[in-house]
Amino acid sequence: MVGPYFDDFSLGDVIETEGATITESQIIDFAFKFDPQPFHIDIEAASRSPFGGLIASGFHTLSLSFRLFRDTGAITGTSMGGGGGDDLRWLRPVRPGDTLRVRVEVLERIPSRRPDRGTVRLGYTTLNQHGEAVMTVIFNHIVARRPGAEG
Amino acid sequence: MVGPYFDDFSLGDVIETEGATITESQIIDFAFKFDPQPFHIDIEAASRSPFGGLIASGFHTLSLSFRLFRDTGAITGTSMGGGGGDDLRWLRPVRPGDTLRVRVEVLERIPSRRPDRGTVRLGYTTLNQHGEAVMTVIFNHIVARRPGAEG
Repeated sequence: MVGPYFDDFSLGDVIETEGATITESQIIDFAFKFDPQPFHIDIEAASRSPFGGLIASGFHTLSLSFRLFRDTGAITGTSMGGGGGDDLRWLRPVRPGDTLRVRVEVLERIPSRRPDRGTVRLGYTTLNQHGEAVMTVIFNHIVARRPGAEG
Repeated sequence: MVGPYFDDFSLGDVIETEGATITESQIIDFAFKFDPQPFHIDIEAASRSPFGGLIASGFHTLSLSFRLFRDTGAITGTSMGGGGGDDLRWLRPVRPGDTLRVRVEVLERIPSRRPDRGTVRLGYTTLNQHGEAVMTVIFNHIVARRPGAEG
């Protein structure tokens, strides 16, 4: 399976991911490694925090959002790496039991000086089960050009 | 232990983290969950990729960089959550055995409309053992004001 090439992405195209439910155990495991703040790893402290309970690390939400996008196959076999991100915003808390999915829109296509690749600029919106946006970010993905379409 | 309050950060202040060596096992474990692209989880495919070998997911480098910053204590007990990020750039591959540390500079202090907090804008530069920058990002951290300094 090879996903679309750089040349196949069109401005305004929207890719919808499947969903994934984030569990209390996943939230604590991730945060214990990468973001051990009390409101991510300590249910008692979290309940006394302004968040009123345990919430996922923003880095967890971000990483999971990318995984969901990856699983659409949209860059499978064509990804040549990440070109960075912009405008990362965490808009609402993500709590144990929330089910997240991601809406990804093609914002821009930027041909590279190297003829075999280009950058696709994608706007991610991560939504919870209520349809509320919990995170937005723009990512630049370096994607191979269709063989024969280079130049 | 409580880290500095919003009022204690000064423009140009630099916080240096300790280092951490990233292992092959950590790279594969993280990527298998969040970024299962061949050059992050498959040593054979990675050796044939443009990267010439296994490299860490950019989301892994980002999450680890935050953990190293967190361990400095600079936002311990005062962090009120993440205010988002900008200008994330992955500059060089991170490979198994690399030792990363982070240089964090205070770029801006933005008082909040809410009197108990403010946003500290921090520029992160993640460096490898050769002193080469592998990642840069700007993060906004929401930090409590010193009790009595509100307003």
